[in-house]
Amino acid sequence: MSTKPTKGVNLKAVFIGDKAENGQLYKDLLTNLVDQHLGWRQNYMPQDEPGITFADQEEDSYKQTVRKQKEVLSVLSRRMRTDSVPWHSAGRYWCHMCSETLMPALLAYNFATLWNSNNVAFEASPATSLLEEEVGMDLSHLLGFGDKGWGHLTAGGGTTANLEGLWYMRNLKSLPLAIKEVQPELVEGKSEWDLLNMSVKDALNLWRQAKEENIEKIKFRTARCGNHISKLGKLIVPMTKHYSWPKAADVLGIGTDNVVPVPISSHYTLDVEKLESIIRKTVAEGTPILAVVGVVGTTEEGQVDPIDKMVALRKKLHEELGIWFYIYVDAAYAGYARTLFVNEDGEFIDDYDELVKVHEEYGVFSDGKAHISRDVYNAFKAFKDVDAVTIDPHKMGYIPYAAGAIVVSDRYMREVISYFATYVFEKGAECPALLGAYMLDGSKAGATAASVWTAHRVLPLNVSGYGKLLGASIEGAQNFYNFLQGLTFDIEGKVFEVVPLVEPDFNMVDFVIREKGNNSLVELNAFNNEFYKESSFNSGMTYYNGFIISHTDFSIPDYGDGPIKFVCEDLGFSLEEWKKAGKITILRACVLSPYMNDKKLFDSYAKSVREVIEQRLKKLCLKK
Amino acid sequence: MSTKPTKGVNLKAVFIGDKAENGQLYKDLLTNLVDQHLGWRQNYMPQDEPGITFADQEEDSYKQTVRKQKEVLSVLSRRMRTDSVPWHSAGRYWCHMCSETLMPALLAYNFATLWNSNNVAFEASPATSLLEEEVGMDLSHLLGFGDKGWGHLTAGGGTTANLEGLWYMRNLKSLPLAIKEVQPELVEGKSEWDLLNMSVKDALNLWRQAKEENIEKIKFRTARCGNHISKLGKLIVPMTKHYSWPKAADVLGIGTDNVVPVPISSHYTLDVEKLESIIRKTVAEGTPILAVVGVVGTTEEGQVDPIDKMVALRKKLHEELGIWFYIYVDAAYAGYARTLFVNEDGEFIDDYDELVKVHEEYGVFSDGKAHISRDVYNAFKAFKDVDAVTIDPHKMGYIPYAAGAIVVSDRYMREVISYFATYVFEKGAECPALLGAYMLDGSKAGATAASVWTAHRVLPLNVSGYGKLLGASIEGAQNFYNFLQGLTFDIEGKVFEVVPLVEPDFNMVDFVIREKGNNSLVELNAFNNEFYKESSFNSGMTYYNGFIISHTDFSIPDYGDGPIKFVCEDLGFSLEEWKKAGKITILRACVLSPYMNDKKLFDSYAKSVREVIEQRLKKLCLKK
Repeated sequence: MSTKPTKGVNLKAVFIGDKAENGQLYKDLLTNLVDQHLGWRQNYMPQDEPGITFADQEEDSYKQTVRKQKEVLSVLSRRMRTDSVPWHSAGRYWCHMCSETLMPALLAYNFATLWNSNNVAFEASPATSLLEEEVGMDLSHLLGFGDKGWGHLTAGGGTTANLEGLWYMRNLKSLPLAIKEVQPELVEGKSEWDLLNMSVKDALNLWRQAKEENIEKIKFRTARCGNHISKLGKLIVPMTKHYSWPKAADVLGIGTDNVVPVPISSHYTLDVEKLESIIRKTVAEGTPILAVVGVVGTTEEGQVDPIDKMVALRKKLHEELGIWFYIYVDAAYAGYARTLFVNEDGEFIDDYDELVKVHEEYGVFSDGKAHISRDVYNAFKAFKDVDAVTIDPHKMGYIPYAAGAIVVSDRYMREVISYFATYVFEKGAECPALLGAYMLDGSKAGATAASVWTAHRVLPLNVSGYGKLLGASIEGAQNFYNFLQGLTFDIEGKVFEVVPLVEPDFNMVDFVIREKGNNSLVELNAFNNEFYKESSFNSGMTYYNGFIISHTDFSIPDYGDGPIKFVCEDLGFSLEEWKKAGKITILRACVLSPYMNDKKLFDSYAKSVREVIEQRLKKLCLKK
Repeated sequence: MSTKPTKGVNLKAVFIGDKAENGQLYKDLLTNLVDQHLGWRQNYMPQDEPGITFADQEEDSYKQTVRKQKEVLSVLSRRMRTDSVPWHSAGRYWCHMCSETLMPALLAYNFATLWNSNNVAFEASPATSLLEEEVGMDLSHLLGFGDKGWGHLTAGGGTTANLEGLWYMRNLKSLPLAIKEVQPELVEGKSEWDLLNMSVKDALNLWRQAKEENIEKIKFRTARCGNHISKLGKLIVPMTKHYSWPKAADVLGIGTDNVVPVPISSHYTLDVEKLESIIRKTVAEGTPILAVVGVVGTTEEGQVDPIDKMVALRKKLHEELGIWFYIYVDAAYAGYARTLFVNEDGEFIDDYDELVKVHEEYGVFSDGKAHISRDVYNAFKAFKDVDAVTIDPHKMGYIPYAAGAIVVSDRYMREVISYFATYVFEKGAECPALLGAYMLDGSKAGATAASVWTAHRVLPLNVSGYGKLLGASIEGAQNFYNFLQGLTFDIEGKVFEVVPLVEPDFNMVDFVIREKGNNSLVELNAFNNEFYKESSFNSGMTYYNGFIISHTDFSIPDYGDGPIKFVCEDLGFSLEEWKKAGKITILRACVLSPYMNDKKLFDSYAKSVREVIEQRLKKLCLKK
């Protein structure tokens, strides 16, 4: 047998497999679960007459309808197989955040869908509401909030979680103003500026001190009533933000005018010095800061903002200027990577050097080297000090779409966004899980909770479970990054070289292909766009496409000077050229595959991918 | 063979069956689909090495992880079977809007989940994005908007759809103000009042006339920038509204202070005369009306607001006062019932008397009688004249949770809420489906689209398909209503009678149980609450519970004088008693079952249910 480390889960057993290697296992487990459901149906009040009789099943119209179903499902199958992208491939699909999903998550999802529970209300989902509560607490512990925090799944993914997060912050920020309106003695001596610069903890403590009959009244004098919103200040987000942030500001009435972008470093992370000067300038003008968003796993680059430095900055400015702003971490993409730093006792591994040893012990990286930078480690460590976090199970949780999640640092925060509807639950009743009252979503599939719950139990949220999976993906990305470094092609006398954008913090690898001697950035952009088209659905049925990636543009209005290092130093274009082109077109490889940490397998794919790239470059040269 | 009408689908062939009668068919179809998926995985680039080897599968750790999966799935199965509600029962579960889901929808959902596509972007879901486009157009045609309209699915159900609907209305209402800001000559001579009283059509036409370079600028000066919101006026909703409406007003910065409730009639529908006087009063005060919401299928009663009369009122007030407001139909619950009025050519059956004949022809109602009132028919007929509609496939579309939908009457409306993100799609590129740009949601399961698409093709959205299904459910509700009428129990000398609230417009039946001679409403409420507890999860494991319903409270603050007719006339309580109790507790039966139109089957269940009710009444009498 093999000598590979066996500590923790074996990742080869938790996916169907790129070539359906575990297909039979999947079918066996699925059939077993379906049978259990069918038996449950049969045995509820077995004395009752069946709704469908044998005579019904002999009707001509019954047979016609069955045939119709088969025909329609056959069309569906043809369309799925014709138009879908081969994201399951171990090493040829690097395009979007769709990848192999966990087999236990798929099985649980399909099983629980048969029950059709709706987690809006405990009464409509007694089984799956409890699973969602447990999942929420899993995530709260993972992110460092422990029992004090609270989380839940969102139906609409990270976009919904970010929207809900900003809703929390808007209503919380206005809470002291509402308290002043309803029970002014509680904030005696405090100026409006003071009220707009309170921490979550202080604001909630104030609220708790209100007279009982005022608690609910205060809630309805927060921003939810329609007042105060224009006073709440600026929402500061890094230039690498997801577009769900300006959208959330629009939706919540805060307004896109109040979203302030922070420039990014040449490492594509939030520039803390620039953040500080923006905050100082804004505050000097008398405008409060509603919140600062840090991104952990930027959508285009997979980079990790320095959350630790943002937390330290808040402390410093609070001491110096008496101001306060919320810190929200948008870890929709990379949140699950915190499992890399949590030991089997659920504790954050408190020492960076210890981390290497633990990773070796669990075989997190197959070559035994630490692949996580100290900066990234520090950013994740600081999660426990922020106010709330978005984390998507359907991204690096390898759960089927759609499952987002939000976790708040203090469960009492929920009160500022809660609603009740008589028919779904009774306030204060014995229901242990009144999920619908404390979230933006209404109805949502209980099956999602079952899916995430099952995955979390097969792969614990620490180095023994998810940590190994995240490690495999990160190592695969680093293999791909190393493969691209210095990769050149000689196509009939023309030399093309591949230039990666930046050493990846996570599992996204960005790069461009440049022709040696070309000094026009406009041309480079056009060429890379053409290359992208050949490497995507644009070139036809992707089932015949042997290397699939995505692309993006870093434009000056969105990215400011962030790309200058890459464009001018790494690629050697002039500053003039950068300004003329106004953007750089980037090829983007999202390495979610759980198989590309296997160096031997990687090399076999790298050979194939190299051939495909070469063919494409030839084709593009001929076109010219 | 049978003599039942065979025209259209046979409903016995499209469900797994309350006793798993079609269980084997489900398994056969599922296995076939799973095999097709596994084959697709195997045959993409069959020259590639597999990611999981036979040697991998022999590792001890592989076997341990497989065993772990089985153990966790077994716990999941136990929990699902222990805690779930028996919603599949043909005639014992009447509690929530969870019911049998369509077999083709389940199969398509489970099949498509294997592909894990994400409909946020065409690139991540080339197959299922197209299916969603087609589903959106299905619904646009169903609701009367035809090719001009546009619809899409929402991840978070009707709550998300209503939120997006109000987002549309907020941004649209501010559009003329934004035009004035950017290109004032377009609105020369128009007062602010004029600008706040424009129809969707007129506002969009104005926008189209703007200079090209101003189009985008105008968009960013609408309410999305954070301005104008306080000027947009009142959102008027009936007292029977779902709580997602005040929540949406909160979230969108409009504010709960600007939500105005309209009193309801004794039929639990919006009172149009009272609506008119509210509008006149508000307008006289110089406040515009943002929108009026009509509910089609109220959450607690299933009643249908008079959309036709609301449309007529808007026309009248526009002619008389020059004002304009949007009309939004929240048909999350009953929207699919419009299929009852659409013929196989997709045309709305234009004559109420013709309807009876068509329903006979398709056997929509098994006893041949028309069960749809003229008022309800007229309300559905008027959908084509409203601005947008919420309609939930996961409710009366019998699709698994979660699938909501919103349909707007003019696809150009989308421009006021659209966003773009480079990495997900290129504006103006060849992608036929840029769904993520035009909605509140971000990531969402492509599987949902596959599920709804398949259901719509097996059961067409007209009298031959969904119409028959909705008919079966409505007829079942009317059977239940008739059963309850005059139902009495003699429990050791005490007489209990069942009193239905109101003749149902749709498939919800509300009622109370009263003890003869009791003159205390407080007591009646307490008694019905006790009865509810026995008939719900409160009494323990529902798998052993033979009759399950939900309950609700109609309180004076929420329902105003609406319940007075029932409380004082039907139940005979004094007005004093009503004021003293402040509410009436209602038992609520949601009749989604597709089997209860079968009179013979219904009678057998009615007998069992009658026995259960009797036992419960005995138990409650003993407790007293």
